[in-house]
Amino acid sequence: MLRRAASALLNTGTLLSVPWAKVSPHPGLLVPLASRPFSLSACLHKKKKQKSRWLVLSEGQKMDGNIEEVLAPLRQAVKEQGDLVRQMKTDGAPDVDVAKAVAELKARKRTLEAKELSLQPKDDIVDRTKLEDTLRRRFFYDQAFSIYGGVSGLYDFGPVGCALKNNILSVWRQHFIQEEQILEIDCTMLTPEPVLKTSGHVDKFADYMVKDVKNGECFRADHLLKAHLQKLMSDKKCPEEKKTEMNNVITQLDNYTQQELTDLFVKYNVKSPVTGNDLTAPISFNLMFQTSIGPGGNMTGYLRPETAQGIFLNFKRLLEFNQGKLPFAAAQIGNSFRNEISPRSGLIRVREFTMAEIEHFVDPTEKVHPKFSSVADLDILLYSSKAQTSGQSASIMKLGDAVEQGVINNSVLGYFIGRIYLYLTKVGVSKNMLRFRQHMDNEMAHYACDCWDAETKTSYGWIEIVGCADRSCFDLTCHARATKVSLAAEKLLKEPKVVNVVQFEPNKAAIGKAYKRDAKIAMEYLSICDECFISDQEKLLEENGEFTIETEGKSFKITKDMVTIKRFQKTLHVEEVVPNVIEPSFGIGRIMYTIFEHTFQIREGDEQRTFFSFPAMVSPYKCSVLPLSQNQEFVPFVKQLSEAMTKNGVSHKVDDSSGSIGRRYARTDEIGVAFGITIDFDTVNKTPHTATLRDRDSMRQIRAEVSELPDIVRDLSNGNTSWAEIESKYPIFEGQETSKKDTSEE
Amino acid sequence: MLRRAASALLNTGTLLSVPWAKVSPHPGLLVPLASRPFSLSACLHKKKKQKSRWLVLSEGQKMDGNIEEVLAPLRQAVKEQGDLVRQMKTDGAPDVDVAKAVAELKARKRTLEAKELSLQPKDDIVDRTKLEDTLRRRFFYDQAFSIYGGVSGLYDFGPVGCALKNNILSVWRQHFIQEEQILEIDCTMLTPEPVLKTSGHVDKFADYMVKDVKNGECFRADHLLKAHLQKLMSDKKCPEEKKTEMNNVITQLDNYTQQELTDLFVKYNVKSPVTGNDLTAPISFNLMFQTSIGPGGNMTGYLRPETAQGIFLNFKRLLEFNQGKLPFAAAQIGNSFRNEISPRSGLIRVREFTMAEIEHFVDPTEKVHPKFSSVADLDILLYSSKAQTSGQSASIMKLGDAVEQGVINNSVLGYFIGRIYLYLTKVGVSKNMLRFRQHMDNEMAHYACDCWDAETKTSYGWIEIVGCADRSCFDLTCHARATKVSLAAEKLLKEPKVVNVVQFEPNKAAIGKAYKRDAKIAMEYLSICDECFISDQEKLLEENGEFTIETEGKSFKITKDMVTIKRFQKTLHVEEVVPNVIEPSFGIGRIMYTIFEHTFQIREGDEQRTFFSFPAMVSPYKCSVLPLSQNQEFVPFVKQLSEAMTKNGVSHKVDDSSGSIGRRYARTDEIGVAFGITIDFDTVNKTPHTATLRDRDSMRQIRAEVSELPDIVRDLSNGNTSWAEIESKYPIFEGQETSKKDTSEE
Repeated sequence: MLRRAASALLNTGTLLSVPWAKVSPHPGLLVPLASRPFSLSACLHKKKKQKSRWLVLSEGQKMDGNIEEVLAPLRQAVKEQGDLVRQMKTDGAPDVDVAKAVAELKARKRTLEAKELSLQPKDDIVDRTKLEDTLRRRFFYDQAFSIYGGVSGLYDFGPVGCALKNNILSVWRQHFIQEEQILEIDCTMLTPEPVLKTSGHVDKFADYMVKDVKNGECFRADHLLKAHLQKLMSDKKCPEEKKTEMNNVITQLDNYTQQELTDLFVKYNVKSPVTGNDLTAPISFNLMFQTSIGPGGNMTGYLRPETAQGIFLNFKRLLEFNQGKLPFAAAQIGNSFRNEISPRSGLIRVREFTMAEIEHFVDPTEKVHPKFSSVADLDILLYSSKAQTSGQSASIMKLGDAVEQGVINNSVLGYFIGRIYLYLTKVGVSKNMLRFRQHMDNEMAHYACDCWDAETKTSYGWIEIVGCADRSCFDLTCHARATKVSLAAEKLLKEPKVVNVVQFEPNKAAIGKAYKRDAKIAMEYLSICDECFISDQEKLLEENGEFTIETEGKSFKITKDMVTIKRFQKTLHVEEVVPNVIEPSFGIGRIMYTIFEHTFQIREGDEQRTFFSFPAMVSPYKCSVLPLSQNQEFVPFVKQLSEAMTKNGVSHKVDDSSGSIGRRYARTDEIGVAFGITIDFDTVNKTPHTATLRDRDSMRQIRAEVSELPDIVRDLSNGNTSWAEIESKYPIFEGQETSKKDTSEE
Repeated sequence: MLRRAASALLNTGTLLSVPWAKVSPHPGLLVPLASRPFSLSACLHKKKKQKSRWLVLSEGQKMDGNIEEVLAPLRQAVKEQGDLVRQMKTDGAPDVDVAKAVAELKARKRTLEAKELSLQPKDDIVDRTKLEDTLRRRFFYDQAFSIYGGVSGLYDFGPVGCALKNNILSVWRQHFIQEEQILEIDCTMLTPEPVLKTSGHVDKFADYMVKDVKNGECFRADHLLKAHLQKLMSDKKCPEEKKTEMNNVITQLDNYTQQELTDLFVKYNVKSPVTGNDLTAPISFNLMFQTSIGPGGNMTGYLRPETAQGIFLNFKRLLEFNQGKLPFAAAQIGNSFRNEISPRSGLIRVREFTMAEIEHFVDPTEKVHPKFSSVADLDILLYSSKAQTSGQSASIMKLGDAVEQGVINNSVLGYFIGRIYLYLTKVGVSKNMLRFRQHMDNEMAHYACDCWDAETKTSYGWIEIVGCADRSCFDLTCHARATKVSLAAEKLLKEPKVVNVVQFEPNKAAIGKAYKRDAKIAMEYLSICDECFISDQEKLLEENGEFTIETEGKSFKITKDMVTIKRFQKTLHVEEVVPNVIEPSFGIGRIMYTIFEHTFQIREGDEQRTFFSFPAMVSPYKCSVLPLSQNQEFVPFVKQLSEAMTKNGVSHKVDDSSGSIGRRYARTDEIGVAFGITIDFDTVNKTPHTATLRDRDSMRQIRAEVSELPDIVRDLSNGNTSWAEIESKYPIFEGQETSKKDTSEE
């Protein structure tokens, strides 16, 4: 989930703190090999080499016993705590105790994962400094407003970054919108406060921060406290019991209330790490950018923190557009905004970012996807909640089995997981560094039935790049309740149906007495509540003897004497259905960043020559056109090729500068141009006129007629043919690169 | 120009106040005919019919003498005032007097244009109520947040609106980015204050408003005052001299200072038109949405009011990406924001909108476009500044002639005007309702050398949809001065060159005495000023004996004794060039709105059946697939066609609902689906399997093999073939629509 709401809202730091966890002793699982993945051979034989980054152990094979020996007690520790949490839940232990136990469980899980990571071979990790240097130098993206000193968390995408992004989105549209006939909409980013009050963002989309009392510098409270404690613990003189105590605090960081955090800052005497100045007490800081809509100053608005709300608000129009029928899906691509307290980690945590979200609306009684069979045979690395709470590793499963065994809640969710997997691997995410991790029960927002994150392995650890949540009827119900507009579909029943109805039966006298003239508002509200809500409140009524409702800016405490829950039967011909929502939510910047890491390569024997092995479909430019020299005889061919490729819609880059052909290839490789056409004297002198076409990854070349090349490049770029096929049809050209490689390529 | 800056900034109302002005007595000009453009015949023979909306008068032909008789004195009045303004400028009359005369000139121009409009046949005007009903009902777009009561000026685009918008942008990318090899970038919308301080937006991007003192309702001061005066004038008892006085006020509305406006509100006793309550005095209201970046609360930011600034700020990176060479162009597509005081006019004036802007950077000494010849022969309706100030109408000119005769300043500007024309007419803007209007000298922002707006004729009058300005070196110079970062290109001179250098020679003693420890800052600033700036200041120094510079938040008054201007010669081998910028700036929402009006059609004989004749290239869906009935035998063919079209990237919509085929065609016509495939019993029973393909505009049908249809639709949609060509190749299908039309089509 890219969304943080309700119970998960304060837990903003965890995304980056989950370390790698992939070593596994289990047969059939992926285990890393000590290979050099970014070598020339990896480029020449990419498929083969990439596979070999992770060895798939078959039955009977065994992993290095030493590693598993080290990990065994850690696994056991996770499992014990997981069992404890489950037992506590079964026993109905108090929430606060469960929360503490869960925090401990997470901490043990983190320890296990960190250890697994530390035992992995290190050369699987990208050289991030080199990567970032390339990204900046070739202006894929860079800090925004840098001539004005820059603003952290804001980035501008340059020509190649922007083209890559456009291509990633364009493939997204093909893969999802067109393939699934999804209704794409485009909503405003400015959002008035009441909408985000309903969605929970106004109250809960916040982090705690502390401020330097003298210079006003701000810090995220949890990050700062953790760093401070870690520093104290690293002191050799720190007594063991103190260490244990502080470790406990770190473990529980996500659970503390504002007051508890305040006390901890006092207890451990935390100061600004920069100036040593005193800090304010932790205060809640809402992460939305606030503004004022219109000139009156009385309409507070925010920049949307997610695109999903716009879809929910338009549900009725979309349903009508779909002629009243379920299921259907709507989608939106657009920017969202989060005013992070201290953005870091490059594109991973930014203040303005592009999302692509799908909301698939489905009748909750028909949560079956008709096309699920098309993805059921995919082998996907799944990291189920159960595995996580039992100290196990992620494991490869067939999607069909995962749904059948109930690991994945339903086939609609399963279908989207499969489609997400296919999309991500199509645009350049490495299959072997991609897993789907199920949210553990406890970290799931309260509205989600089941939620899986697509996570990729990067130099920052495993990062979430796509969330795929079954949000049940949460959002539509909230907005319907707040606006009193029904957000439901009608289903004509084949046969009349007798149903159980659940209603609040208000005690008018008691409510009237308590709320006088506002009683009417409260009763109106109670009259439109749905079963889902009523059952929740009934539980509260039983447990606490009361519940609270909020409507029209007022709050009403409803006690047992004010309301009874009435259940009766009714014959229906048409049924109202509040659809459930399956929400795949894509963080485009994080997908891009992953692609950068997963495709960044270094040519063997030349550390200075790097390139991105982007799939041609998303390459910023599909093709370069390079005349061998600045000789005027080449010009007409350059023009002919450029015009034909423009007509074909093939993005390309002419480089007629004076560098050697090798240097120019290196320059286009560096920005991931997929193919290169070179015009040489053979092109000019011989008929039919031919030119060479070079494949970036293998650096191999073929020779084809100039008039054919634009179509070849188009077909290669949209996946209608492969380089292997092209090599089998056209003569290999070995002149320049193969025989005179040293001079031509450098 | 979509930008309002500097002197033009307060003049935000004029866009919509320019009425139609197209009747012309001049040979070779377009003159409206009293035709019914939205008739069936217009659909069947669209090309021919569209042309006939405007009759091109050739030499010798004459327009209705009566109309010209009425207009003659108005034309004369404009001409006289135009001559007066020119004379005043020549004589160096005080600015304030020139401004008054210009306002009078504009008022006379408005009167002339209003009269021209009133004499035009009315049935050229779209039925806006019907159009807007269709747009809302079929969810092209609608007011955002309407279940929460809505927010004016904010709109959500539904599935068909969003698809149309995406297609318009996609054609834009092909037409500009790919064809011209433009560098597209993607910058953040959040912008810190200093950037917009430099660009002038913080100080000048504002309108005056007044507030109801009791309920706080806000009104735009100029709009309200004008409406109030017009009401007073409409009173029969209003004496003539009062009327003249008030007319004068309306004429001068754009010129008043805040104090003058305040006095006028008092003088005419203006109250709230809604409540009758008193109003506050007019206050300046900045139109940018303000927010705070980061948690500290000390970094003010705004949502960008235009996308252009992001390109200027990245100039150095872009220049480097282009290997240091000029000319090159960069572009950006994205949203911008303006907090309008009282948004109205649907998509025309909104608070959040998508723009597409190009900045073409060119050496000012080489302002010649190599590809100009490719557009030189285009006949375009130009409304030059000279024509406007002389009481003449717009006239058709060849672009080549316009550049040669100096009507358009240079061929780079001319080239872009041609390309804009080709783009707009490609995506559905009617050639005959499109003109390019030159800004009159006086309304041009002070940085622009020449500026032309593409304007379209709509039911709101002529509205600006694209601006095309030569902004000289204004923006780069401002940002360079504010950041002290050089934003210039280097040009290697073929031969060393002796140049005249202009520099400030500061008198250190005098500046030191005046500014003590800040003197250094002032001198640093003076040392980096460019010739352009120095010459401007020199003039001020001569006229006023002083000028003021602002740097690092401080202001310095520089008097004659503090500085001398030094001019000397220097031999250069490399030359620094601050590029000039040609800026085509597209308002995507306005282009869309124009397309809606220009393509909205009503079927002859059935007022209820409307359709949009969108060019297939931008149609929301290219094709519908309609099985004749819900018979299961049709299903495999629907599936085959749908899959093949998805593979071809052809967006389509399957409608297998139960309505008659005619009703379903009407429904797809209403959202502008370009083609329709019907699967009938012939498809199932005969081999080879064939189906009908229907053209939306003509409603004619051909019959082709099912396997061929996806390719046919793709070629029709991307412009590789035309319907006429398809009709010549395949048998016309007349069965259903022609012989049984009544039943099949309704």
